Amino acid sequence: MNKNFVRFQPSGSKSPCSEGATILELARDAGVSIESICGGSGKCGKCTVALVAGADLLSPMNDNERRTLSKDEIDSGLRLACQASVVSEGNITVDIPEGSRRGHHRLLAAGIEPDIPLSPAMSKILLKIPPATLRDIRADDDRLLDMLNAEAAVRANIAPGVHQRMPHALREKSWEATATLYMKEELIGIDPGDTTSDILGVAVDVGTTKVVAYLLDLLTGNTIGTESQPNPQIPFGEDVMSRITYAMTNDDGLERLQKTVIGTVNSLIRQLCEKVGKNPVDVLELIMVGNTAMHHMFFGIPPNHLASAPYAPAVRKSISVDPNHLGIEIYPFGKVGSLPNIAGFVGADAVAVLMSSGLYDDDEMGMMIDIGTNTEIIAGSKDRLISCSCASGPAFEGAHIKYGMRAATGAIERVWMDAAEKEVLVRTVDDAPPRGICGSGIVDAVSEMFKCRVISASGKIDASSDWAERTREGPDGKLEFVLAEGESNTDGARGVSITQNDVQEIQLAKAAIFTGVSTLLRKLGIRCSDLKRVYAAGAFGTYVDASAAITIGMYPDIPPERIRFVGNAAGSGARMALKSVDARKLADNLSQKVEYIELASEKDFQSEFAKAMFLPHRELDRFPTVARAVANSFDR
Amino acid sequence: MNKNFVRFQPSGSKSPCSEGATILELARDAGVSIESICGGSGKCGKCTVALVAGADLLSPMNDNERRTLSKDEIDSGLRLACQASVVSEGNITVDIPEGSRRGHHRLLAAGIEPDIPLSPAMSKILLKIPPATLRDIRADDDRLLDMLNAEAAVRANIAPGVHQRMPHALREKSWEATATLYMKEELIGIDPGDTTSDILGVAVDVGTTKVVAYLLDLLTGNTIGTESQPNPQIPFGEDVMSRITYAMTNDDGLERLQKTVIGTVNSLIRQLCEKVGKNPVDVLELIMVGNTAMHHMFFGIPPNHLASAPYAPAVRKSISVDPNHLGIEIYPFGKVGSLPNIAGFVGADAVAVLMSSGLYDDDEMGMMIDIGTNTEIIAGSKDRLISCSCASGPAFEGAHIKYGMRAATGAIERVWMDAAEKEVLVRTVDDAPPRGICGSGIVDAVSEMFKCRVISASGKIDASSDWAERTREGPDGKLEFVLAEGESNTDGARGVSITQNDVQEIQLAKAAIFTGVSTLLRKLGIRCSDLKRVYAAGAFGTYVDASAAITIGMYPDIPPERIRFVGNAAGSGARMALKSVDARKLADNLSQKVEYIELASEKDFQSEFAKAMFLPHRELDRFPTVARAVANSFDR
Repeated sequence: MNKNFVRFQPSGSKSPCSEGATILELARDAGVSIESICGGSGKCGKCTVALVAGADLLSPMNDNERRTLSKDEIDSGLRLACQASVVSEGNITVDIPEGSRRGHHRLLAAGIEPDIPLSPAMSKILLKIPPATLRDIRADDDRLLDMLNAEAAVRANIAPGVHQRMPHALREKSWEATATLYMKEELIGIDPGDTTSDILGVAVDVGTTKVVAYLLDLLTGNTIGTESQPNPQIPFGEDVMSRITYAMTNDDGLERLQKTVIGTVNSLIRQLCEKVGKNPVDVLELIMVGNTAMHHMFFGIPPNHLASAPYAPAVRKSISVDPNHLGIEIYPFGKVGSLPNIAGFVGADAVAVLMSSGLYDDDEMGMMIDIGTNTEIIAGSKDRLISCSCASGPAFEGAHIKYGMRAATGAIERVWMDAAEKEVLVRTVDDAPPRGICGSGIVDAVSEMFKCRVISASGKIDASSDWAERTREGPDGKLEFVLAEGESNTDGARGVSITQNDVQEIQLAKAAIFTGVSTLLRKLGIRCSDLKRVYAAGAFGTYVDASAAITIGMYPDIPPERIRFVGNAAGSGARMALKSVDARKLADNLSQKVEYIELASEKDFQSEFAKAMFLPHRELDRFPTVARAVANSFDR
Repeated sequence: MNKNFVRFQPSGSKSPCSEGATILELARDAGVSIESICGGSGKCGKCTVALVAGADLLSPMNDNERRTLSKDEIDSGLRLACQASVVSEGNITVDIPEGSRRGHHRLLAAGIEPDIPLSPAMSKILLKIPPATLRDIRADDDRLLDMLNAEAAVRANIAPGVHQRMPHALREKSWEATATLYMKEELIGIDPGDTTSDILGVAVDVGTTKVVAYLLDLLTGNTIGTESQPNPQIPFGEDVMSRITYAMTNDDGLERLQKTVIGTVNSLIRQLCEKVGKNPVDVLELIMVGNTAMHHMFFGIPPNHLASAPYAPAVRKSISVDPNHLGIEIYPFGKVGSLPNIAGFVGADAVAVLMSSGLYDDDEMGMMIDIGTNTEIIAGSKDRLISCSCASGPAFEGAHIKYGMRAATGAIERVWMDAAEKEVLVRTVDDAPPRGICGSGIVDAVSEMFKCRVISASGKIDASSDWAERTREGPDGKLEFVLAEGESNTDGARGVSITQNDVQEIQLAKAAIFTGVSTLLRKLGIRCSDLKRVYAAGAFGTYVDASAAITIGMYPDIPPERIRFVGNAAGSGARMALKSVDARKLADNLSQKVEYIELASEKDFQSEFAKAMFLPHRELDRFPTVARAVANSFDR
């Protein structure tokens, strides 16, 4: 009986140790997914793992590993899982770094979330109230509030509509009733009997393209459901600016934009509740986050002035309104609130990401990047935080890219080019035949094409590279690079290539982001290497390969392990606020504390942008690691 | 040239002093109305006046005066204005006591109102706000609230719906805008330009039979309009109890009762505004008072439990809700509030009366009586106040009285019986031919009939009295006493008599009230004579003759000059609350401070009530003055 195992961290899964098997094979046996594109040939380098124990039981490092891993990686004991095999049975422990975990990204989609003490705004108290008698003729309100004060030391006011329910609610179950309190100061509900076991809340992230809603049990703090739908405002305008224009140029434009998104939120609430057998009327509070324009439209606040300088938001502070005021179909005397905004293009969603990332509390310098059509960046440490917004456009969402698509089945999400074999290896979502390419795939492709000199530093596709047979002229007369041939694949496949125009779109997008990055660093008086942590938020930020993003000059040139993926951190921040009034206070403080700079009014904005258009950058000393790697690649 | 005048206090009007003329004639010349029923024959005693100066210039006291005035009155220098004539010209000053002023009652209808410092909950501030620029990119809310704090040291929150108006309102008049504040802590409005000259409020007294609304300019505190309409709930039930029954026995009963009264209030608001060229949307706040049932129905609060012991109100505390919540058509972000209630049958209207009477601040013992279908009584001084409610019924409003009617044209409002001439003299509203009899007339009639022995102390009409020719058998076989013969009068007149049943109705009503009076006195450990002031409130309380009310044993037996008429003091109290947040605090304190006793659960209630059924009372030592007067009358 084999008592030796290979254990995989951090999951703790294990597999019997079997001589001759590679770590990659044993990982699969253990049900642990390790990233790998090159089919175990030791070339793509995606399956890098760290040996924690039993390194001497493995085959010695081979040439593939020496070629693929950097000196630093080799020195710190990393191996390629597809190359290292067991030579002598024993107990081995392998740690799989974040970047090598396949599927890890998807798990992150819900967003990481710091463990915070539960202190929701909504609470319930069961009261046994002395009945009204001729000897005790106190009014119902006095009777109820006196009891609340006696039982829970709460001195509350009764919310207007609740008065109407009070007389029956108190008497229906013989003066046993449950009081619902908001912030322990406003009595927003009184129900007959004991209903203390139901306290639900909903957190909503209203993204420009997607609305995600989370149902939370506020007694446990657990998220008991997640649902999403496309933002129904898309038909009124793909991006924020065109929706603002719609609101400005149509008499009932704002009202329509508001109604449609409120309708979707109501539908998500219904779905969430149905799945767990609850009633939307049991949802006591909804907290929304979104960019400033989505926030304004959600609350019916004219977003007009976000469209032109100085881009002042109407509302920065967090707000809380009656559900009826907006038509949100939850408990009618509940609350619908938002986190605060920071500026016209750094909204409540950025505050939420900042809060869930923990950057605001870091001693060392860090940066949070939430990539979307507008990319919000906040940099600094607990002493000072500066934010900006970059018009990065929708390229990473697949828009304006010839074969661009969302990360759905068949989308190329990983690209690796085998320089030796002149082979392009791709991985698609659900391993389906390639139908198009999503954001992470595009960044991988541009990065690989640059490393393999298919494109120059200025982004021009070179017809005479070593990869000429994959380079062809497209219908527009411009060159394009073929990632996958349609005819070579099974049903549903189509040819996918990267066009000259695609490359330029990516350059524009990444230049916009890096201009923000470099401006914030300059304002803080620090360099890229001073950044001890970069929090990559949002769906794209979570899926994109950090090294590829650094290679093309989108992320600052720091060791990839300093990049932490925080998933849909906007949703996480909204959930934190729902679970904790302290988190709301933190958000209010952060929204005031974080400085904002308007990039376009920075005097060197144009030249910074122009320099950032190059791959990775015109000033190569800002990307020393990339410069070295590309030089190596050229040497190959 | 005659330089001698007769001056009349308190109006200050004067008339040239003319030898031979009576004071009554000179008063008419000066445009001063003195009460008189007997046509100047010196018999009815209604024209009693006090000589302040020049008493020696008048005719000496004659037999009529000696007969009609009491010894106390003669000793304190009172005269009958119809008997005292000028014998020698000179300067004379005459004071007309409240009870002798004719028409005074009507002026009181609006209610007296203490002069209080203006401190309304609503205020406006004109702000000139620095515009948003790229150098000052604060959000609109920060910009506005910072300015409010700088200009007025106000730290306010923005009310939910106001956010939507803010961006346009700030920019429309180049960042000059008027902020509207509620309690100096909630920003409920922002309007372009300077609108500080318009701050309107409405006070509403929702009576069981009549709804009265007052429009106030909150910049000056002036009442700029008064309108009233019958309470539209009357078709659902004449009295409070039948309306509660309607609410309890019909599914949408409460909703209908609420909607109809809200509709009437909206219509009153429109009328008020139209007359002064204002828009209802300029009305920022509405304060309502009413009895507890009217209060609950107005706010849509189930009144069910007011209908049965222990008669606990649902809501005692003052409340404030959004106009939209009730459908009140004023400024949508304004407020609709109420004064607090005291108990199930001592409502916000009683608090209002108490507040406007000043009883709560008296050093000496006093009592406030607000007569209606339910009569609320509060007794005590600033140290302690006790209240109760008496089921006095609608007799004083003319209901259940054979010829009963409201105090409209042709209603007998004063009755005086000339024992010597066996003549009944009546005065009607507008001096029109008698068509019926209103509350004050009924009390006068019963009082006079008792004094003239037409009815006994037990209330039985005596067919064999000296007035037998006016006593006849009615259609029901019971006796009735004819006050006015129809055929003797001109167009529109009809015969008006008082039936045996009418007398009993009045006995029941006055017994209910006096049981309340005597119970409160007992609780306070005082006697009638300890009451230094009685505040008579309400329309009926204002019109009724104090002496007559004492004679029948409705009011405690105190010198009539201690009775102060405060008119519609409920409306006055509502206006005070509208004008002053301090008045609201006072009301809140009073509502908690005033004790309440449930009369029906007092152990001697039945026997007290039975004794009070007698005229003036079974225990005559409680009415020494009446006992003496009636004895005198018997002697005549």
